Amino acid sequence: MATQLAYALENAGLQIIQVYSRTVKSAQVLADELYTDFTSDINAISLSADLYIISLSDDAIFPVSEKLSLTDKLVVHTSGSVSLDAILKTSNNTGVFYPLQTMSRSRKVDFSNIPLCIEANNEENETILFSLANLISKNVRRINSKERRILHLAAVFANNFPNFMYSISEQILEDNNLDFNLLRPLITETASKIQKMDPRDGQTGPAKRGDEKIMKQHLDMLNNYPGFKEVYKLISAEIQKNQE
Amino acid sequence: MATQLAYALENAGLQIIQVYSRTVKSAQVLADELYTDFTSDINAISLSADLYIISLSDDAIFPVSEKLSLTDKLVVHTSGSVSLDAILKTSNNTGVFYPLQTMSRSRKVDFSNIPLCIEANNEENETILFSLANLISKNVRRINSKERRILHLAAVFANNFPNFMYSISEQILEDNNLDFNLLRPLITETASKIQKMDPRDGQTGPAKRGDEKIMKQHLDMLNNYPGFKEVYKLISAEIQKNQE
Repeated sequence: MATQLAYALENAGLQIIQVYSRTVKSAQVLADELYTDFTSDINAISLSADLYIISLSDDAIFPVSEKLSLTDKLVVHTSGSVSLDAILKTSNNTGVFYPLQTMSRSRKVDFSNIPLCIEANNEENETILFSLANLISKNVRRINSKERRILHLAAVFANNFPNFMYSISEQILEDNNLDFNLLRPLITETASKIQKMDPRDGQTGPAKRGDEKIMKQHLDMLNNYPGFKEVYKLISAEIQKNQE
Repeated sequence: MATQLAYALENAGLQIIQVYSRTVKSAQVLADELYTDFTSDINAISLSADLYIISLSDDAIFPVSEKLSLTDKLVVHTSGSVSLDAILKTSNNTGVFYPLQTMSRSRKVDFSNIPLCIEANNEENETILFSLANLISKNVRRINSKERRILHLAAVFANNFPNFMYSISEQILEDNNLDFNLLRPLITETASKIQKMDPRDGQTGPAKRGDEKIMKQHLDMLNNYPGFKEVYKLISAEIQKNQE
């Protein structure tokens, strides 16, 4: 997240003054790519920036922010699940800048369509974050801490769990010497179908049709995969329960 | 499926001679769009075609095909789960023509990248189906009945179950007056990420990280959704079990 966000902000014409990380190596790698300064000493963090972005794992946000001495600076974090208060001890000016997207270091992200969820401790800071967010995305929203937590939960269902479903299908194909490429177009279509459609209207498959014969056949085929069999059973039951 | 396949074949320069359906209305709707003939009388099916495509629900394939008198004609079905034998009583020349894709009547399908899975009762028929499939797709494969059943099972995990995950996320957002559009870019990225990646390498989220605190928070938030809570628990446990 830190890497992708730094690129996006720099591309938007902003200057990254310094990269901080607890490990020298990580700080240096990103700083080198951005042609900027870095430090791994929390007491050597530059005081000349207008904005400080804490992009760390949820558990690290509070302990790290506690050690910062940035009383009047605007300090934000980028987490979906951590509330705004987590950094209140750090500064009188706090905010959240949460890009609702899955990110990995190596895969370049186009921020322009990514929803950026903004929260701040007062209107002035909110306006600052809003302007900043608008530089990199066309999809900026005011989202409070409670709403952000809900979005994050929903994102687990929309992202982490579908990805695990893909893994199961890959595992099953692999064990039968079938090529996962056979499923990739289906996966693309499944996601793009609901870009304009309500997913509840797009539901298909044996559970939706109530096709007990096929479901029985599938469960028998999953006898060697007790965990996946449970997943198949539970999700099929839920699909049937959630029909109008 | 019948509708989409008929369009694709006609676009490829083939002639659809006749549309048969048990209900006059369905037969007529499609026939009108294709400017061709139709019938709802199984005994009035034209004998002048080179190929007969049975595109029906799984349970209907056998009973309908039994009533056909097409002894030497090439007759195929389009199902993922029904074996080749199901139509052996119909003709001495049988095959399967299974497009591995989700289809609905209203959403136009581009067949060019869809895997077409071909099976036939002899080499000659296989060659005919192969040539035909190559007219509409660049992705044609020889897949036997057992493999096709496995593909169909895997497709449930790759398509039906992810779609239901999207529905859950939409339900949660809706109940909290949040806009499902916030998740759509994430869903797109999740699917496109694994077009070149192994989904097992792309897995992220609290379960993957072993973030018990967030998982606990999420389960508490799901107290009003006992079914979804079970889904969250089971899939998270499976994600953790399936880590290397």
